Amino acid sequence: MTRKRKVAVLGATGAVGQRFVQLLSRHPWFEIVALAASERSAGKPYREAVRWTLPGGVPDAAAEMEVVTPDPDRIQADLVFSGLDASVAEHVEPRFRDAGFVVISNAKSHRWKPCVPLVVPEINASHLDLVVTQKARYGGAIVTNPNCSTIGLTLSLEPLRRTFGVSQVLVTTMQALSGAGYPGVPSLDALDNVLPEIGGEEEKMENEPRKIFGMLRGGQVEPVSMKISAQCNRIAVRDGHLLSVSVKLDRRATLEEVREAFRTYRSPLGDLGLPSAPSRPVVLEEGFARPQPVLDRDREGGMAVTVGRLRECPVLDVRYVALVHNTI
Amino acid sequence: MTRKRKVAVLGATGAVGQRFVQLLSRHPWFEIVALAASERSAGKPYREAVRWTLPGGVPDAAAEMEVVTPDPDRIQADLVFSGLDASVAEHVEPRFRDAGFVVISNAKSHRWKPCVPLVVPEINASHLDLVVTQKARYGGAIVTNPNCSTIGLTLSLEPLRRTFGVSQVLVTTMQALSGAGYPGVPSLDALDNVLPEIGGEEEKMENEPRKIFGMLRGGQVEPVSMKISAQCNRIAVRDGHLLSVSVKLDRRATLEEVREAFRTYRSPLGDLGLPSAPSRPVVLEEGFARPQPVLDRDREGGMAVTVGRLRECPVLDVRYVALVHNTI
Amino acid sequence: MTRKRKVAVLGATGAVGQRFVQLLSRHPWFEIVALAASERSAGKPYREAVRWTLPGGVPDAAAEMEVVTPDPDRIQADLVFSGLDASVAEHVEPRFRDAGFVVISNAKSHRWKPCVPLVVPEINASHLDLVVTQKARYGGAIVTNPNCSTIGLTLSLEPLRRTFGVSQVLVTTMQALSGAGYPGVPSLDALDNVLPEIGGEEEKMENEPRKIFGMLRGGQVEPVSMKISAQCNRIAVRDGHLLSVSVKLDRRATLEEVREAFRTYRSPLGDLGLPSAPSRPVVLEEGFARPQPVLDRDREGGMAVTVGRLRECPVLDVRYVALVHNTI
Amino acid sequence: MTRKRKVAVLGATGAVGQRFVQLLSRHPWFEIVALAASERSAGKPYREAVRWTLPGGVPDAAAEMEVVTPDPDRIQADLVFSGLDASVAEHVEPRFRDAGFVVISNAKSHRWKPCVPLVVPEINASHLDLVVTQKARYGGAIVTNPNCSTIGLTLSLEPLRRTFGVSQVLVTTMQALSGAGYPGVPSLDALDNVLPEIGGEEEKMENEPRKIFGMLRGGQVEPVSMKISAQCNRIAVRDGHLLSVSVKLDRRATLEEVREAFRTYRSPLGDLGLPSAPSRPVVLEEGFARPQPVLDRDREGGMAVTVGRLRECPVLDVRYVALVHNTI
Repeated sequence: MTRKRKVAVLGATGAVGQRFVQLLSRHPWFEIVALAASERSAGKPYREAVRWTLPGGVPDAAAEMEVVTPDPDRIQADLVFSGLDASVAEHVEPRFRDAGFVVISNAKSHRWKPCVPLVVPEINASHLDLVVTQKARYGGAIVTNPNCSTIGLTLSLEPLRRTFGVSQVLVTTMQALSGAGYPGVPSLDALDNVLPEIGGEEEKMENEPRKIFGMLRGGQVEPVSMKISAQCNRIAVRDGHLLSVSVKLDRRATLEEVREAFRTYRSPLGDLGLPSAPSRPVVLEEGFARPQPVLDRDREGGMAVTVGRLRECPVLDVRYVALVHNTI
Repeated sequence: MTRKRKVAVLGATGAVGQRFVQLLSRHPWFEIVALAASERSAGKPYREAVRWTLPGGVPDAAAEMEVVTPDPDRIQADLVFSGLDASVAEHVEPRFRDAGFVVISNAKSHRWKPCVPLVVPEINASHLDLVVTQKARYGGAIVTNPNCSTIGLTLSLEPLRRTFGVSQVLVTTMQALSGAGYPGVPSLDALDNVLPEIGGEEEKMENEPRKIFGMLRGGQVEPVSMKISAQCNRIAVRDGHLLSVSVKLDRRATLEEVREAFRTYRSPLGDLGLPSAPSRPVVLEEGFARPQPVLDRDREGGMAVTVGRLRECPVLDVRYVALVHNTI
Repeated sequence: MTRKRKVAVLGATGAVGQRFVQLLSRHPWFEIVALAASERSAGKPYREAVRWTLPGGVPDAAAEMEVVTPDPDRIQADLVFSGLDASVAEHVEPRFRDAGFVVISNAKSHRWKPCVPLVVPEINASHLDLVVTQKARYGGAIVTNPNCSTIGLTLSLEPLRRTFGVSQVLVTTMQALSGAGYPGVPSLDALDNVLPEIGGEEEKMENEPRKIFGMLRGGQVEPVSMKISAQCNRIAVRDGHLLSVSVKLDRRATLEEVREAFRTYRSPLGDLGLPSAPSRPVVLEEGFARPQPVLDRDREGGMAVTVGRLRECPVLDVRYVALVHNTI
Repeated sequence: MTRKRKVAVLGATGAVGQRFVQLLSRHPWFEIVALAASERSAGKPYREAVRWTLPGGVPDAAAEMEVVTPDPDRIQADLVFSGLDASVAEHVEPRFRDAGFVVISNAKSHRWKPCVPLVVPEINASHLDLVVTQKARYGGAIVTNPNCSTIGLTLSLEPLRRTFGVSQVLVTTMQALSGAGYPGVPSLDALDNVLPEIGGEEEKMENEPRKIFGMLRGGQVEPVSMKISAQCNRIAVRDGHLLSVSVKLDRRATLEEVREAFRTYRSPLGDLGLPSAPSRPVVLEEGFARPQPVLDRDREGGMAVTVGRLRECPVLDVRYVALVHNTI
């Protein structure tokens, strides 16, 4: 690779934006050239505008950069990462798209548009063909990625889906506090407590996997018909969403076959030499009471989903527990 | 009621035993007349022998009582409550039974014997008829009660079972630390973490409800054929087990019919005027993110199960979240 | 007492206001006749206007009461309790005072005015004479009470100050989350963490005790010259502020004399038969690692300060740990 | 450096031993050649014998090594690191010393012997001269290091002691759970709670700094006369001890002079090129509510003490808060 791609971050002072800044500033392929945030932050050096909440402090490459407003005319970049809140993303991201940018968006705003790919690269990189479709129509394109809990669910299902097919999924989540951003969950709601509902989250988990696993047809994604039931809980863990999953397979399989499907699964991106993609996106860890957030959330630099507690399900076919780092 | 029943507590210094002492010492029907524990504690006043961990301190009625060893010859009582560990209960409780006592046991040791009732009074008080069967055979009897997580599950299922029938149950638990006793879970395993396995717990939850809901036939309990799938987690909450439950009903019902079944359910013990039995053992609380441990665990003095998040399940028929206080 | 006194609560929907409502609604001397809050809440029934965060739910006596704005002309009451934030209290409380009300205020706004008593009843009930002074000048009066951490510090010092005199105090606090109200401290700042600074708190703790212990002279309070050094920390505890205190006495005393001073200390209000005032406002608890929030915060209904870890201080004279319930 | 030094770890399966194994296995100067633990573990490969609790898993270099008993005759090494519990260390470490080994001990057993150095390298590397004294007498030598809380206290005091002299220290600690090892503190004692006493800890903190800051005289260490008062608390934090410290200086200094003393302090070991020693062992961080465990405990790879909240103390001279990572 001869030249780093120039990237801009929208919503750079928020929780998602900070994570983008942290990851991009140390990424060998990318160079941050613009940081955009609201009027209130614009004009300030990033280190002043941001209330940085990640370990390790504001990256040097970003600290002194002047924050600008999210205006397509003021930003020169090959790629735009957006950590904007959904309410803002809804209007701002299409403006960047129409100005010819490719926008990678973390917001839910455009996820359900049939021509906008909802990408988990290990599963549906082919959906990126819709970038061409969109460019033809708008000049630029919006690419979205799902919530971390959905990424964890779909990645952990992928080895089963490829090998046996999956028709029904019942999932209960125990999600980390950092998933709610900052200030996020009040401590009085978190300490010695569980919040057994996360606004809008269950709807996403019950629907987005159907699009992620969907087929490209006629310039848009057609969702699969998988039935998913989700119940989402917020618990007192800083990082790492834990998912308790039961699955009905299309084709009956022994527990040993299921185990083998997890063990032999490799990322289809493995040959591309992507610097942050693990070759084994799903790791099986069958020790007692594993996976656990404190022991397993940083596996493969936080990029792998750890699966454990694999066993037969007396109601559906197979049960397991999956852990996904929620902010990486 | 003219006379208080004299009761003894076995394993009085342990976590379960302390709870028995606390509840019995303020119970209008009972009078504690003997506290038994291991050799190490015997001969000491209870307040010295016990490392009391409940709020409010050692009850006055018990503080100065001399602890004795669990020997049927040394104890005079109408009723024996046993908080003994399973390993000890296995041998000690039958000795009390054979000596003519009725033993109420919290241990798992005898739960699966067909002639030993496993009682959740609101559900299967009729199983207590087996006391007569046992007395005929042994002189006394053992009556067991299930774990709190199983009590919570079966009580929350009871309104559905009575009204529609229940054929399949899928449950994921988030269980409190106090359920593991003291010292129990090390803090490094609890803080900022989840333990997604509790030794032996899933097996109990998948089987015991089948006996609790079972039929008396020929002097023993015949379990029902309900299919149950349980995945148990230990989380950083002091008190209150939360259960995320999906249910397949025998007879399809609208969500409104299900809601009505919960709302109209009353304890069949209601007419008996039991001092610690709530008339509504299951309370429906449909606010956002309810039930929560800090807000709902002490409802009805901790005796009621609170059910919330009632909705249709895309995979089975209906989903809900239930909260049960785990040490009362 | 023949008639209950009619009371109004200002700022009734906030954290302090809710506590006032809870305590007053079950208090034998008082009857709530008005609940006031901001425009946004006015006109609604209290149960709708409030986001109730205390266990036990909204008291029946208050639930259906219509919330009004904090306007002296619209309220008829013998006494006004104000849980208003300082920024609002600054303007609103004097308007009630000028309209002839006696206002009991929890805000810091007026605490340092020389004619406004800052009252810890067990210590300086005599400062209430300033109510007469104020009434002469304004028609009504403002009476303030200090923060819970300051109440705990001064109450725990009182037995020493009365018996030996106190010239220097060095205190490090570990304060509970509920002290910051709701939403208060973000969970990501609380879990697995300590915040070693609480805005404005140290200044209050270093100054307010000097006024509380002060003398009435010429219609105002003259602070004592005690030197106090405070460092305040916010920790992951729901309720109960813990204070680690070192004290220099005016007159040297043996540890046994100090212990005796704590043991024999009784509330000077003891004879008045106040329903919520404990006769022993300071309780000595010398067990290992006591006092602890979970074991001791509810002592005497949360009204008592528990003192433990009493020992000689190698630098000043005596050290101890005190626990005060922070919201009662 | 041409050759790595061969090292053995005693008590290799315990909490301290695991940390030794983790740090030594990646250290450029050392090569682990033997892992010793109790009879129960001996003969097993290390990965089986240990219940590993640190992130990242058992280091490859150690995983397959066979665990031996702590017998000097069975171990060949240039240096022995001992993570043995005090009760075992008391007898085992002198046997290694008498067999000619230099033993680096983390146990308290030998810390107070006048010829055994108690070393914080940045402060008193010169005390290592006692190794020669010991070798002459025993053949080998024992070198001890203090608890992490004492290391944090003495390192944070060192810039003040060198510049102004320190005569009195009053410290209140908020110590992390990992400091108690595993299983260590029960979760029911940690969650929503503080334990305001840690057995034996205060005595160590009040005495050990006096030896660390002491002078070598006649083949032994003579402690300084500094007065120290410590009150130790265990709180719900995984890693990182926080210390609230007040100091009386020998020579009065302005706050700016004190700040300068912290800022200009550099490790006297800086020129030696030690791979794990930071050049700035004490880092000043004066942001609001800093240092915090989650934000600052991993500074300089966890080797630096972070000092914040620097201000005048109304009772002694200067106050500050220090954070030290407790297991590195």
